[in-house]
Amino acid sequence: MKKILIINTGGTFNKIYNPLNGELVIDEESKSLDEIASKWLCKFEIINMIGKDSLHITTQDRLLLLATINHSVYDDIIVIHGTDTMDTTAEYLDDADVDKRIILTGAMVPYSIDPVEGTANLASAFGYLQTLTEDGVYIAMHGLFGHYHKIIKNKKNGIFTLA
Amino acid sequence: MKKILIINTGGTFNKIYNPLNGELVIDEESKSLDEIASKWLCKFEIINMIGKDSLHITTQDRLLLLATINHSVYDDIIVIHGTDTMDTTAEYLDDADVDKRIILTGAMVPYSIDPVEGTANLASAFGYLQTLTEDGVYIAMHGLFGHYHKIIKNKKNGIFTLA
Amino acid sequence: MKKILIINTGGTFNKIYNPLNGELVIDEESKSLDEIASKWLCKFEIINMIGKDSLHITTQDRLLLLATINHSVYDDIIVIHGTDTMDTTAEYLDDADVDKRIILTGAMVPYSIDPVEGTANLASAFGYLQTLTEDGVYIAMHGLFGHYHKIIKNKKNGIFTLA
Amino acid sequence: MKKILIINTGGTFNKIYNPLNGELVIDEESKSLDEIASKWLCKFEIINMIGKDSLHITTQDRLLLLATINHSVYDDIIVIHGTDTMDTTAEYLDDADVDKRIILTGAMVPYSIDPVEGTANLASAFGYLQTLTEDGVYIAMHGLFGHYHKIIKNKKNGIFTLA
Repeated sequence: MKKILIINTGGTFNKIYNPLNGELVIDEESKSLDEIASKWLCKFEIINMIGKDSLHITTQDRLLLLATINHSVYDDIIVIHGTDTMDTTAEYLDDADVDKRIILTGAMVPYSIDPVEGTANLASAFGYLQTLTEDGVYIAMHGLFGHYHKIIKNKKNGIFTLA
Repeated sequence: MKKILIINTGGTFNKIYNPLNGELVIDEESKSLDEIASKWLCKFEIINMIGKDSLHITTQDRLLLLATINHSVYDDIIVIHGTDTMDTTAEYLDDADVDKRIILTGAMVPYSIDPVEGTANLASAFGYLQTLTEDGVYIAMHGLFGHYHKIIKNKKNGIFTLA
Repeated sequence: MKKILIINTGGTFNKIYNPLNGELVIDEESKSLDEIASKWLCKFEIINMIGKDSLHITTQDRLLLLATINHSVYDDIIVIHGTDTMDTTAEYLDDADVDKRIILTGAMVPYSIDPVEGTANLASAFGYLQTLTEDGVYIAMHGLFGHYHKIIKNKKNGIFTLA
Repeated sequence: MKKILIINTGGTFNKIYNPLNGELVIDEESKSLDEIASKWLCKFEIINMIGKDSLHITTQDRLLLLATINHSVYDDIIVIHGTDTMDTTAEYLDDADVDKRIILTGAMVPYSIDPVEGTANLASAFGYLQTLTEDGVYIAMHGLFGHYHKIIKNKKNGIFTLA
């Protein structure tokens, strides 16, 4: 079994409802990940960073993410990321030619609103990493798996499809 | 991407509450799988059969399951199965030396009571199958993946562990 | 048993998540009310109108609501309303001296995100109306019941309290 | 506002799933009530006792319940009770001619499996008690309210109806 690191950068996956202003905000404590680990009866190694909607992720954020990946002792890493610029971050990481296996995933629906999609995306990435041997940057979303440029978001219906 | 078949044999994963007698019964229509597919924004190929708690699965049921696997056009198959005799069925299938990749999974908590564990087990099996190349019989439970004899249920705490 | 009408004007109670733009919007079909009725094993008489966040409710909306109440054959009416201007609408209705029992209720958390608060507020209003004999405009929120000017929203913590 | 006591005797309302044996058992800590109070943003005064499926409630249990009601400083009491013998307990309490208002309620579906029905029954009893002036024993279930002999369980479909 490979040891896997989750780097949680925020995105819809982590949004929770704030009753005081009626808005969805990113939960900085990543309680969703803790709850999945608890209910899935396993443990996650987690780094929380950036904590942004992916539309607000900057090049500096991506540099920080890359540095974190490079400095990590883990070679198999899941990055939880907002879906809107998941491809941009994937390309950025791919350009850096990291000798690791990196899978980006996330969710269209916050885990706190309905846990199924986010749980399925994350857990499928876990399984996918187990037997993945080729270094590179991948996406696991909506039951699809592959190199990041092969799995793209259809912005009209919000579903990832094969390119 | 591999095409994957789900053979749903019942087990706790599929149990639903019957308010009239206060008991949990196996949902023969596998609505849980349909709901996961719908929320995960993908489609599953499903065969429902046997429909039993794994304590009641007989050798004849296992023979039927094996025949279904052998006759299927799919080479990558997830079997949803009760956890109590998952190892027995896995061994039975392994003895038959099928030239396919078969992953058994299930849940300790019914999807209808809490969807996280069942969703995570199933989705992780999906990911795991993608890059699995060696034929054999595997188990994916609680974030663990491997040949069936390496992933065993701790009956005291209800958690699967490495053998 | 009294016959009760629910007039559903929108508000947080009815908000649902739109995955395409990541925003919470008012569900015009009031599926939340239908789901409560179905799970509570009873039937509701419902009028859907206005369909707004209470911050956007206008005097014209309130006039329309009053006209609907006046023209209704029901004398016992629950109004589902956003919490921010629940008091303004209550005062507006009270000024009209309607010879009916009107209870305003709503929710701080959308039913679709967590059903407990909205269900409890609505169901408590149902019970409260049963034995209420004095005409007037009331609020039922967070386990509190009374004339509308006695139950007020604490905007700091989002909890209704006794005035 | 009246001060209300909840006496929690068990029943389906309080059942939780035990993954180790796959059975539903009564949660002796009444975490469901605590969760409703927390989400409804209010506080409950609770006495947990008996802790049984209503089919197993004995005359001695009913005597203990009656004694608890008689010795309580509260005059307005909700009794959470299994539905199968709710009528028997109601009659037992009624025979004792207590000078209090007692409402029995419960659920067909455990709160832990789906919170809507149990929450609605309990919250509706809260509202109903507020304006109830006549001493007696009542039932609040499935949107119905009345003296206990007027609200009866249809055992075929599991829905309470008017007698």
